[in-house]
Amino acid sequence: MWPDNRIRDLFSIDLPIIQAPMAGASGSEMPFAVSAAGGLGSLACASYDPDRLRSLMAAARERTDKPLNANFFAHAMPEDDAERDAAWLGRLSTYYAEYGLDAPTSLPIGPVRPFDAARCAVVEEFAPSVVSFHFGLPEPALVARIKAAGCKIISSATTVNEARWLAANGCDAIIAQGLEAGGHRGMFLTKSLGSQVGTMSLVPQVVDAVDVPVIAAGGIGDARGIVAAFALGASAVQIGTAYLFTEEAAINPFYRQALEDAGNGETVVTNLFSGRPTRVLANRMILDIGPMSEDAPSFPKGFAATGPIRAAAERTGKRDFSAHFCGQSVALGRRTSAFALTRELASEALRHGAI
Amino acid sequence: MWPDNRIRDLFSIDLPIIQAPMAGASGSEMPFAVSAAGGLGSLACASYDPDRLRSLMAAARERTDKPLNANFFAHAMPEDDAERDAAWLGRLSTYYAEYGLDAPTSLPIGPVRPFDAARCAVVEEFAPSVVSFHFGLPEPALVARIKAAGCKIISSATTVNEARWLAANGCDAIIAQGLEAGGHRGMFLTKSLGSQVGTMSLVPQVVDAVDVPVIAAGGIGDARGIVAAFALGASAVQIGTAYLFTEEAAINPFYRQALEDAGNGETVVTNLFSGRPTRVLANRMILDIGPMSEDAPSFPKGFAATGPIRAAAERTGKRDFSAHFCGQSVALGRRTSAFALTRELASEALRHGAI
Repeated sequence: MWPDNRIRDLFSIDLPIIQAPMAGASGSEMPFAVSAAGGLGSLACASYDPDRLRSLMAAARERTDKPLNANFFAHAMPEDDAERDAAWLGRLSTYYAEYGLDAPTSLPIGPVRPFDAARCAVVEEFAPSVVSFHFGLPEPALVARIKAAGCKIISSATTVNEARWLAANGCDAIIAQGLEAGGHRGMFLTKSLGSQVGTMSLVPQVVDAVDVPVIAAGGIGDARGIVAAFALGASAVQIGTAYLFTEEAAINPFYRQALEDAGNGETVVTNLFSGRPTRVLANRMILDIGPMSEDAPSFPKGFAATGPIRAAAERTGKRDFSAHFCGQSVALGRRTSAFALTRELASEALRHGAI
Repeated sequence: MWPDNRIRDLFSIDLPIIQAPMAGASGSEMPFAVSAAGGLGSLACASYDPDRLRSLMAAARERTDKPLNANFFAHAMPEDDAERDAAWLGRLSTYYAEYGLDAPTSLPIGPVRPFDAARCAVVEEFAPSVVSFHFGLPEPALVARIKAAGCKIISSATTVNEARWLAANGCDAIIAQGLEAGGHRGMFLTKSLGSQVGTMSLVPQVVDAVDVPVIAAGGIGDARGIVAAFALGASAVQIGTAYLFTEEAAINPFYRQALEDAGNGETVVTNLFSGRPTRVLANRMILDIGPMSEDAPSFPKGFAATGPIRAAAERTGKRDFSAHFCGQSVALGRRTSAFALTRELASEALRHGAI
């Protein structure tokens, strides 16, 4: 028996395990498999324009009638600052020269866009069980429309203050994202990395601070972490990195190999690759420049700045510029399928006897 | 029932709770009370010369026949680098001027010294149940002498590599010190803060990597954290910050008030105060200089550099230069006694039903 059924009941899912949305890595087969197993699969929609989003949602409706989560970003549009972008590209010019490439002269925004009215219309049309956000929440009118469509809304808090803000602004549950987590820090009320708290500290403090159920995220790599999260007061867990080891992960063999080798490497929170702090495997560019730079361009334009050199380096077998997102429990990852992982995590957690 | 009795058996203690040694804060009444309650009290001995150490040990023998832990540092003696020290003092000169003080012209080492043969002789004389180290281990000959005296040896690992090294070099148990922990990072094989891992990630990975029992530390602020730590595979917990809220804490009212107010503040890992990375409450000096500086003097000479301005500022009610050590779960702290805290943590953990 699970010690807390609030998230299972809220989302109408059998297993209190949410597969973390991972833009560019979780694809759609993974979330379908997780939902089929009884957990909550998450579609990473942040880089989908409204038309592609509609196709994805339609395909999802064809494939499953199980609950699914559609994840979006709630960041502000990047600043239009050509001077700053050019300075950053200048800083990367030696890398471009190394690969005989011309550096771009400007930075396009790229496909990652904030949630807006057009995307909201698609959400209303398909009404996924859950809509999750990263980097806060969209404007109140959009939040109200999503709720009116019958979707539950969740978002990530990296501090107690952010958790309180999210609860006060309409979240039905809150993801407490500990510092161990891979990928982008959800931080939106603070820019200070010093404010970022480990899962062991964050979860009980968020549980104490808000009335809605809490989903623990960050460093949960196997059933032990699930049992620990419930002990801390969580009502469910969100797991990302462990799912990157599944056959459904939509990542290239190079990324996959980096994860398998990561036991001896270290992960770092860096803003060099996107413009916002995100946890990735350490590599040469991070060592060269240092993980956090005030000169990095506005999110998400950082991706465009490193794209060409990353591609060229990967062709020669180097991950010097690759944003290989993963959390601090990457060494606990094991090859399996998303369906099997979900079922095994749940049964092992229950078998642990601690819940 | 506790799910794992390895540390209880190894140290002959009733409760698998170790009060963290906190130099300048834990005093001796706190460890006596914790041991009396059935846990393991820890005497922070790093700043005691052999004569004072002998007095402390003799007093302890008078007071209790329960197991106690004597904690020492295994750092290298600081570099003798007058130029570097002077440059650092120059950097702090505006602060000295602000308080009308003359900056010192050199930095004494101060009382915090590495464990050595003279201290080892006192340990052999009194043979405390447990001898713990921070910053690695002393030379093998001293480790052998401590073991021959019948003491168990433990030390802190901040990475899996450090855990393996400690197990291979004679530790009977290993403290897995997650990044949430207050006070000095025990790191000794790495200088990279990026290598430092949250408790949720570190504990299961250390448990998998070594055969000796593991003590979880970092962010464990109440019974929920204890239950979580056992779920992650730990055989005991080490708790520091929660004990700073006890009446036995040998801290001044100013420090105590800062802890009580800390719910709204943030903690930071900084090397500005001692020369080594340590987690403290954020303050003005950290904001001014940035938390980590390559110019900070060799540990522990940093203390001497800030001592006079810290004292002057505290007299005017400011903690701009105070090293108020504490972990990321400081907001969970509650006023009580060390005896009551130990007993309550244990009974609540058992009552949680999760163990």
